[in-house]
Amino acid sequence: MARISMIGAGNLATHLSLALQTGGHDIVQLFSRTAKTAAPLAQKLNCPFTTNLIELEQSDLAIIVVSDDVISEVASQITLPMVHTSGTKGMEVLNQNNLHGVLYPLQTFSKNKEVNFQNIPICVEASNKEFEKILVEIAKSVSKKVSLLNSKQRKHLHLSAVMACNFSNLMYTLADEICQAHEIPFELLKPLIEETAHKMQSIAPTDAQTGPASRKDLLTIERHLSHLNTDLEKKEMYQILTESILKRS
Amino acid sequence: MARISMIGAGNLATHLSLALQTGGHDIVQLFSRTAKTAAPLAQKLNCPFTTNLIELEQSDLAIIVVSDDVISEVASQITLPMVHTSGTKGMEVLNQNNLHGVLYPLQTFSKNKEVNFQNIPICVEASNKEFEKILVEIAKSVSKKVSLLNSKQRKHLHLSAVMACNFSNLMYTLADEICQAHEIPFELLKPLIEETAHKMQSIAPTDAQTGPASRKDLLTIERHLSHLNTDLEKKEMYQILTESILKRS
Repeated sequence: MARISMIGAGNLATHLSLALQTGGHDIVQLFSRTAKTAAPLAQKLNCPFTTNLIELEQSDLAIIVVSDDVISEVASQITLPMVHTSGTKGMEVLNQNNLHGVLYPLQTFSKNKEVNFQNIPICVEASNKEFEKILVEIAKSVSKKVSLLNSKQRKHLHLSAVMACNFSNLMYTLADEICQAHEIPFELLKPLIEETAHKMQSIAPTDAQTGPASRKDLLTIERHLSHLNTDLEKKEMYQILTESILKRS
Repeated sequence: MARISMIGAGNLATHLSLALQTGGHDIVQLFSRTAKTAAPLAQKLNCPFTTNLIELEQSDLAIIVVSDDVISEVASQITLPMVHTSGTKGMEVLNQNNLHGVLYPLQTFSKNKEVNFQNIPICVEASNKEFEKILVEIAKSVSKKVSLLNSKQRKHLHLSAVMACNFSNLMYTLADEICQAHEIPFELLKPLIEETAHKMQSIAPTDAQTGPASRKDLLTIERHLSHLNTDLEKKEMYQILTESILKRS
C-alpha cells in the first residue's frame, strides 16, 4: 500500500485515483489549481485538497495528471518521488533530483462513462530499477495489463493510439453526418462498429479488412465518390483512405 | 415458414442461410456456379444444389447473394419472387416481371468468425406493400433489428458503413504498422479499440471525440507529424484527418 498525492482533478485523475483507492492505496492529498475543480474529487476520495503546491505534504508518490504542457512546470515544484501519466512526454520533463517515472494508462476516458481499470494497459518507465519495481507493483494493483515501455516506444504508441482511437472516432462522425443528411438512423451502424472493433481481439487488422477497396471493387468506389460530389472534404478523405487500402490489398 | 432458394455460396450466403434455417425456413435448393463452392454449403444445409440456373426449382423466394456486378445477369434468369442483399444496388437490377425486393444485412462478415444474426440490422425494400410484409416477416425471423429503407437511403447507408467499418479498420492497420516498426505489442491497443467502438452504444461520435486534435493541442500534433517524417503516406493521412477533427471541435 502506497501513500499517494494526486496532482490534478480532471477526467483521468478521477478515474485513476478511484481505482487506486479500490486497489488499497491511500490518497493522502489532492492538488488542483482551483478549489472548484479540487473539491468534488476530494469529496469523492474523502481526502484533503490544496490549491498550492507548496502545501503538498509528504507521501510515497506524487502522480502528476495535468495537461502535457504544464507537467514540467508542476514537476519542478514537487520534491516527492513522482510520475506523470502522459503518452507523449518523456521522463526528462520531471524533476531529475527525485525518483521519477511514468505510469501511462492507454485508454480513452470520457466524463460520466465508467471504465474498468483492470483491463486498461498501463505502461511503466522509471529512473531506476528499484523505483521501476515499486511502480510496477502499484500499476498491478489497478490493472491486469502492465508492461514496461521506454519513452521512445511510448511516443509511438501514443501516435498509433491516435490513429486507432481518435481517427476511428472521426470515421464514426463522418458516417453519422451522412446518416443525418439522409434521415437514416445512426442506430443501424452500431452493431457494425462494435463488430469491426471486436474482430481485433482475434484477427489481425489486415486480415479483417473488408469492403469495396479491399476487394478492388472500383465500380462501387466510383459510385461512392459520385455520392460525395457535394461534400469535397469527405470525398478527399474517401479517396486517400481508399487508395491506402487498395495499396495494401 | 418460407421455402427459399439460396443463390450464392459465399461468406454472407453461408451465414444467412444458416440463420434462415435456424429461423424455421426451408432452404429447398442452393445455386452456385461451381460444384466445388456449392457442395460444402449444401452439405451444411442438408439441401440439394445446382450449378445451372435453369434447373432452379419452384420456391417462395430466391435470395440472390452474389457479387454486385453479376446480380442483374443472375436475376434475369430467375422467374421466382426475388431479393438481393446488396447495399449498393437498387431494386431496378432485379427481374421486374416478378415480385422483387432487397434484404440488406448491415454487418462485416469474415470467414471463420461467428456472428449472431439476431443483432444484425436488416434493411428491407420491396416492389409492393404485400411483398414488403412478407420480406419483413422473413427478416424478423432472423434478426431483432429490421427497418424499411429505400434504395437511395441504402446507398448512403452503405457509404457510411464503409467509413465506419472499412476505414476504421484501416486506422487499426496503420496503428499496427507503427507498433510493429517500434516493437510495441499491438495487444496494448486492443482495449482502446474496443472501448472507442463501445462508446458509440451510448454517446454520439462528436461527443466521444478525444485526442490532441479535439483539444486543439497543436504541440502534440506537431510532434506526431515529426514522428511521421519518414512515412509520408501516414503523414498526409494524419494531417487531413487532424484538420477534419480540428474543424469540428
